[in-house]
Amino acid sequence: MKLKPKGKRVFYFCIMNNKLLVLGTMAYDAIETPFGKAKKILGGCATYIGLAASNFKTECGLISIIGTDFEKRHLDLLKANNINLEGVEKLEGEKTFFWSGKYHNDLNTRTTLDTQLNVLTKFKPKVPESFKDSSFVLLGNLDPNIQLEVLDQMNKKPDLIVMDTMNFWIESYKEKLEELICRVDVISINDEEARQITQKNSLVEAAKSLQAMGPKYVIIKKGEHGALLFNDNDIFCAPALPLEKVFDPTGAGDSFIGGFTAYLVQRKKITFEEMKTGVIIGSAIASFTVQEFGTKALEKITFASLEQRIKVFKSLTEFKLN
Amino acid sequence: MKLKPKGKRVFYFCIMNNKLLVLGTMAYDAIETPFGKAKKILGGCATYIGLAASNFKTECGLISIIGTDFEKRHLDLLKANNINLEGVEKLEGEKTFFWSGKYHNDLNTRTTLDTQLNVLTKFKPKVPESFKDSSFVLLGNLDPNIQLEVLDQMNKKPDLIVMDTMNFWIESYKEKLEELICRVDVISINDEEARQITQKNSLVEAAKSLQAMGPKYVIIKKGEHGALLFNDNDIFCAPALPLEKVFDPTGAGDSFIGGFTAYLVQRKKITFEEMKTGVIIGSAIASFTVQEFGTKALEKITFASLEQRIKVFKSLTEFKLN
Repeated sequence: MKLKPKGKRVFYFCIMNNKLLVLGTMAYDAIETPFGKAKKILGGCATYIGLAASNFKTECGLISIIGTDFEKRHLDLLKANNINLEGVEKLEGEKTFFWSGKYHNDLNTRTTLDTQLNVLTKFKPKVPESFKDSSFVLLGNLDPNIQLEVLDQMNKKPDLIVMDTMNFWIESYKEKLEELICRVDVISINDEEARQITQKNSLVEAAKSLQAMGPKYVIIKKGEHGALLFNDNDIFCAPALPLEKVFDPTGAGDSFIGGFTAYLVQRKKITFEEMKTGVIIGSAIASFTVQEFGTKALEKITFASLEQRIKVFKSLTEFKLN
Repeated sequence: MKLKPKGKRVFYFCIMNNKLLVLGTMAYDAIETPFGKAKKILGGCATYIGLAASNFKTECGLISIIGTDFEKRHLDLLKANNINLEGVEKLEGEKTFFWSGKYHNDLNTRTTLDTQLNVLTKFKPKVPESFKDSSFVLLGNLDPNIQLEVLDQMNKKPDLIVMDTMNFWIESYKEKLEELICRVDVISINDEEARQITQKNSLVEAAKSLQAMGPKYVIIKKGEHGALLFNDNDIFCAPALPLEKVFDPTGAGDSFIGGFTAYLVQRKKITFEEMKTGVIIGSAIASFTVQEFGTKALEKITFASLEQRIKVFKSLTEFKLN
């Protein structure tokens, strides 16, 4: 098989494989929104990413840690979605990471009510041998030290490294976070966090600063206002689906980046054009996630429902020039 | 000439004319932004709307009021842009409306430093005979009593009535404002104000509530996040141009709605499809406005620069489905 670069932004390294290595938490969440309460439901960014990725032809493996309270039915759910759990460590006698939060009326802000790190304090990520050559690595929102440890265990430089992060790590682990940002190809970050880390008010300037730190591609998530994708001087604006009711925004960002990355794995092409479509697909998947509590809606996505939703996204922004 | 409705959303009344009647303020502004200061520059929503509309084939007439301090060169500027000033009253010995404001670092919030109503307190709008049959009426942001007075002076029901408003009128003149909203076809309002008037957090729900009050079309402006257009169950999302620097957001909303409406006048078609393009054109014009102080950039728009900018908007949201 002969692979030739087509245009300057397409880059094929050796032959890409379908492997997507995902680092992230597996958790139980207690969530309160204006529309209801959920006491103890499946959560964690690796869970959302894995389920989002399961919509695409990928070999997806998780690196995570759980306690003995993690229910078999939840492991079965992930396995049934072809998610490889070899890299998930179970710590005997310990409890799974637990997070509890309450969303306010506007659903754009939330208050953390409780965080029990539990097993997370003892997390030493181990990349399974079979995933050390993954072409795609997605580092979900976690301690940047752990994110770096995963990168250091790879046998070869992955073709695409995607990372997500949040305000907590910016405030407390800035230096390590910057070390990580240097090493990734795509950073996904929300608007306020992009402003916080770069000290720039304009998102265009913030994206330029982030690109200057290393990543060729910057995704700025704006919640109900959609997402922006930056690459050199190119910008793409993806809308969020305008919804009458957002039941639970938990996991929207994780579903987004999971869908985005897994789409690229399936395409085996890393171009701005493909990433634009990836951003739309990630947005479409996230639009399902927020419509029910936890992973419920995400679990039910079918090829047909996703295809239909993507068409809705197209019609949201299409206009005619005369 | 025989005019037949094409599809249910196209409605031709008698033969539409090119007349666009605009109600609004003509003012002097003092503006401070993080990028500089302007002591006394031309402002007012009618001014911005008129200049934005001058990019299209319309017969645009303003209804406004000025004092003796209003400079001849500013009247000449408007006349040079083919704006009819028959409906602009000059009150001898009185001063023009003056507004002074300071934008904060994020440029999304501002503090009013000074408001001198001056001539505005004596404003009795008079629609010139030649504009009483205008097919298009655009009621810029003003006291809803004055907006209603203009509608009452029309000889025939205009084919399209567009209105803009702001928080001040929602807080102090809610009843009159609701009376006006019942009578218009398109309402343009920003996101916070849409939430305020309808008491709905979801913008989709807010738009439905506004539509239930009367307007078939609702435009929700979201500043740097673009705008949403609603009609029945159809939604269109327009991005805002991501800019490195916004020099002065004053008049962005007025330029937007002026460009939007004047485009429809030129097309003489009132359909959701045309409105989508109109929203993009309005957004493109507003993207010029914010790049310099006051009306400076707006005055310099050419057909070529506008065409180029609209193409940029198209490329911002276009993506491929495989």
